[in-house]
Amino acid sequence: MNNLLDRIQLPQDLKKLSFKQLEALCAEIRHMLIHTVSHTGGHLSSNLGVVELTVALHKIFDAPQDQIVWDVGHQSYTHKILTGRKEKMHTLRQKNGLSGFPKPSESPYDAFVAGHSSTSISVAAGLARAKAIKGEPGYAIAVIGDGAFTGGMAYEAFNNAGHYKDRIIVVLNDNEMSISKNVGAFARYLAQIRSKPGYYSTRNRVRKAVCSIPLVGKPLAKAVSDSKSYLKEMLYHSNLFEDFGFEYVGPVNGHDLESLCEALERAKASEGPVLVHVDTIKGKGYGFAEQQPDAYHGVPQFNAKLGSCQNRPQDFSAVFGSWIAEAAAKDPNICAVTAAMKYGTGLEEFAERFPERFYDVGIAEAHAVTFSAGLAHGGLRPVFAVYSTFLQRAYDQVVQDLAIANEHVVLAVDRAGVVGEDGETHQGIFDISFLSAIPGMTILAPATYPELRACLDRAMYHCSGPVAVRYPKGKEVVFPAGLHGNEKYQLSGEGDTVLISYGRLTANCCRAAELLQKNGKSVCVLKLTQLIPYCQELIPILRSKKAIFFVEEAQEQGSIAQMTGNLLLQHGYEGSYRIRAVPNRFLAHASVEELWEEMGWTPQAIACWVEESVG
Amino acid sequence: MNNLLDRIQLPQDLKKLSFKQLEALCAEIRHMLIHTVSHTGGHLSSNLGVVELTVALHKIFDAPQDQIVWDVGHQSYTHKILTGRKEKMHTLRQKNGLSGFPKPSESPYDAFVAGHSSTSISVAAGLARAKAIKGEPGYAIAVIGDGAFTGGMAYEAFNNAGHYKDRIIVVLNDNEMSISKNVGAFARYLAQIRSKPGYYSTRNRVRKAVCSIPLVGKPLAKAVSDSKSYLKEMLYHSNLFEDFGFEYVGPVNGHDLESLCEALERAKASEGPVLVHVDTIKGKGYGFAEQQPDAYHGVPQFNAKLGSCQNRPQDFSAVFGSWIAEAAAKDPNICAVTAAMKYGTGLEEFAERFPERFYDVGIAEAHAVTFSAGLAHGGLRPVFAVYSTFLQRAYDQVVQDLAIANEHVVLAVDRAGVVGEDGETHQGIFDISFLSAIPGMTILAPATYPELRACLDRAMYHCSGPVAVRYPKGKEVVFPAGLHGNEKYQLSGEGDTVLISYGRLTANCCRAAELLQKNGKSVCVLKLTQLIPYCQELIPILRSKKAIFFVEEAQEQGSIAQMTGNLLLQHGYEGSYRIRAVPNRFLAHASVEELWEEMGWTPQAIACWVEESVG
Repeated sequence: MNNLLDRIQLPQDLKKLSFKQLEALCAEIRHMLIHTVSHTGGHLSSNLGVVELTVALHKIFDAPQDQIVWDVGHQSYTHKILTGRKEKMHTLRQKNGLSGFPKPSESPYDAFVAGHSSTSISVAAGLARAKAIKGEPGYAIAVIGDGAFTGGMAYEAFNNAGHYKDRIIVVLNDNEMSISKNVGAFARYLAQIRSKPGYYSTRNRVRKAVCSIPLVGKPLAKAVSDSKSYLKEMLYHSNLFEDFGFEYVGPVNGHDLESLCEALERAKASEGPVLVHVDTIKGKGYGFAEQQPDAYHGVPQFNAKLGSCQNRPQDFSAVFGSWIAEAAAKDPNICAVTAAMKYGTGLEEFAERFPERFYDVGIAEAHAVTFSAGLAHGGLRPVFAVYSTFLQRAYDQVVQDLAIANEHVVLAVDRAGVVGEDGETHQGIFDISFLSAIPGMTILAPATYPELRACLDRAMYHCSGPVAVRYPKGKEVVFPAGLHGNEKYQLSGEGDTVLISYGRLTANCCRAAELLQKNGKSVCVLKLTQLIPYCQELIPILRSKKAIFFVEEAQEQGSIAQMTGNLLLQHGYEGSYRIRAVPNRFLAHASVEELWEEMGWTPQAIACWVEESVG
Repeated sequence: MNNLLDRIQLPQDLKKLSFKQLEALCAEIRHMLIHTVSHTGGHLSSNLGVVELTVALHKIFDAPQDQIVWDVGHQSYTHKILTGRKEKMHTLRQKNGLSGFPKPSESPYDAFVAGHSSTSISVAAGLARAKAIKGEPGYAIAVIGDGAFTGGMAYEAFNNAGHYKDRIIVVLNDNEMSISKNVGAFARYLAQIRSKPGYYSTRNRVRKAVCSIPLVGKPLAKAVSDSKSYLKEMLYHSNLFEDFGFEYVGPVNGHDLESLCEALERAKASEGPVLVHVDTIKGKGYGFAEQQPDAYHGVPQFNAKLGSCQNRPQDFSAVFGSWIAEAAAKDPNICAVTAAMKYGTGLEEFAERFPERFYDVGIAEAHAVTFSAGLAHGGLRPVFAVYSTFLQRAYDQVVQDLAIANEHVVLAVDRAGVVGEDGETHQGIFDISFLSAIPGMTILAPATYPELRACLDRAMYHCSGPVAVRYPKGKEVVFPAGLHGNEKYQLSGEGDTVLISYGRLTANCCRAAELLQKNGKSVCVLKLTQLIPYCQELIPILRSKKAIFFVEEAQEQGSIAQMTGNLLLQHGYEGSYRIRAVPNRFLAHASVEELWEEMGWTPQAIACWVEESVG
């Protein structure tokens, strides 16, 4: 079946193939991508869109000397297949298997870690500068989507990268969308360029046309090009990328290998920084994905023949989504902000019903927070729905524009806690530490759907200043009867030993308590819902206990467990205190359950821990 | 003297004045600015540059209904003078006096908090959207410098703000520099526009010229404007701002009141979003500042007649600056990155001697960190010198591109701890909490100049991964003999009670110990230099003490004190443990000493605290 792919171990193997063979190779790669992702889950549309581009890059450039930096990185599957990892593709995103993102520790062909958007030009600029300073050969190539270009960092880098005249090539992979449809001015601008096929030769054509005028043509062209008049500007009109010091090549059909190779050769031959504008189709070659690229952005396992199940499962994101749509129907001041995550955060219904109050700002979390602050200051009630890991990109804006300004903005922090298969770049384990240290924040951590709704109501109508409501990826957990509600905290059970947690891990604590009960040990469980402001009334309750165990799905330093321990010590607590939070390391990709196992957070592990500790 | 200014209490008072009177008013305001800042210290050059612009804004618009959002905010002194606060200008930046930045709690004319750069367009976009949704009248106006435009957030906002067709006006205050000279592509682009006086009428001129051709002119103009050809584009050539959906007005002479008012009227009359490009001269009207705008960006008190002392004082920044220049002379791989803070961080000498290895990336901290990661990955040894408060803007990049990628980048974290007069938006009290929770970080906290040099050496040559060396604004403190060096920690004195700290506050602890000694109490002092990785060997030492007092110039949640308390509790410590760190609130402007007083960090306060606690 994979006649050609079988012959490719490393990029040099494809350099000998004809374009016809390369086309056939691309078909084999597509087949492998669909097969792999349907079995492992993962990112599909974006990978299908860059098959030819990846093949062309490896044909024209010499990795790893030429360093290819994949922005965001979830489109690097073809790159992995072509760089010695095709036999391991079936292990994608699984514990000890291949990462779904580039990882230098996995292969020397992965020039840099990626996971968050809009960083590739900065990295490539640094790599190119290092090559120049050290006199080392090769190119630094950033491959970045039009969506990632809506992130301010891409612009910061673009503003600088041209400055040093280094051999940097930016490949703009323009699929007319980021994860959701792109709405900003930059998208419109690109659409405008795309509408002019062969733009890259416009200036040459004008120049040629002028030159071809008999007798006066050539001197006229020269006179114009030497002048500073706006006539020159009109004849030699530059686009935005040229304004920023990059040579512009494009737009190129990203599924035509010959055009791609020609454009990349051209970029390679240039002396300064070049931007190559490539048009691609997200989901290319797989009908289901071409029709609904959003739905195939990130997918769980599916039947490749039948396509992925399109129904949104009931999960925390969906519950948030229906809550905000209902709330907005009653309250004309509620509005929703997302940074290119309409689907991921469950905002489809809201966007559909309240387009005037729905703001997708692009992959621009920093702007999203401060824009929300402006909305709030103007009297609206904004909710910024964002994954925990991406909120990291707006830390300063939360401090300055929400907390110092004391603006009432609700942060719906999705994917809080470990997220599983996306791995270390996406774990939601830092929000507790970075948010809890900001004065004036409120942090609520619901564990079930009714609690999520209650917490959102409370955040919206009974809190002031910035409020974070954090909830995990996926589904609610089941609690013993009576152990959920909208109290700030709930204590259940009897005994001198207490297990404390919040969110879904509290259910594991409850089951651990049951296991311990069976062994004749009475253990009570303290379930927190309001984390910050810290409930000071807990201190006397806890001081009366002999042994306290805190289980927390967050980085230990700056955790609520640490805050609690520290308060207890200052209040003279003399019992035993133990914490199981995320230790001082990053957590690689694995399923959520595997990560719980690894951290000792399963009911069994918690019960053993308590047994061992209290004897 | 202030004949005109005396008549101005609120903006409406200046609407009646003639242009001639307004010019005289501007002269009076300039005088007041120079007089004020020479007595209080503060930002001078930027304020002198926007006197006419501020007067024109208040003449044409109706604040507070029209909301003026000052980017960064340190250029809002004239605005303060014109909005009812001129009598309080002498209290600027002093405890309980006027803030050096806009603050809505100070005046309804301050539309939003500012302090960090590049946020104004986001805020204004939110305010404008709120007006539109609520049907409220008025404009939202962002006043933003060309320097602030190098920050990615400005671009993120710009990419979105045009989308809603709201009444938003962006005033680009182009003084051809940010704090240091602007070097990126955007700066070159602006220079190019500026070189074409009257650009804003270019399109009209072309249109008029075409129309004036007898008979065919008008139909030709119409045909061209209806066509989709590149001929149209050439005749109706747009600039970058227009590409982003903003009407462009400019460039306007920012010191000519009539032109300014005309341009602002024009912006006001427009229906959609408008960008007004205003040319100003930083330091305008004060010879010393016009000649050296950088030197008068932020100044301490000075003699207005003689000018500010230009000699850089010996302080931590200067010691860092000479260290890196010396180190780079020996090591060709050392390079320095700054986000528009060459002067503030002490990098002048390095920039002068090693221009090839000096990278000022603009006000772009996120890019600076990831660019540094690229440099390190390419084999160089980058140091990113940055104020603690601005490093907040690159939190995610430190997590993803330094820590996960495990790149060896040295963060020279200047202005760590309380900074005094700049107030709540600039305090360096969050870096400990946000950096200490990132796996793989090293954090060193020198207290003296020799320690700073030693820590930098260690960071550069004896650490791996990301290393933060944090040091305060200003000068070193004096320690008792023997209590400094490059050890991870040092314990001095005898007794069951121990005072712990790091950095400059350790000197206050030493003096507190001396005071206690005089009263017959033996107290030892533990001075930490390596904060992270945490020195586990301290735990048995501390467990042997009866009372522990931790004094820390950082937010308590996520502090080293909290980490210590928590570890002690888990190790069964049964003595008394007390912390004095920054509590859960922001710290307003006041001198460093006043803030120490407020926090109970003076030697006397620490001694009293110990006396009261241990009886």
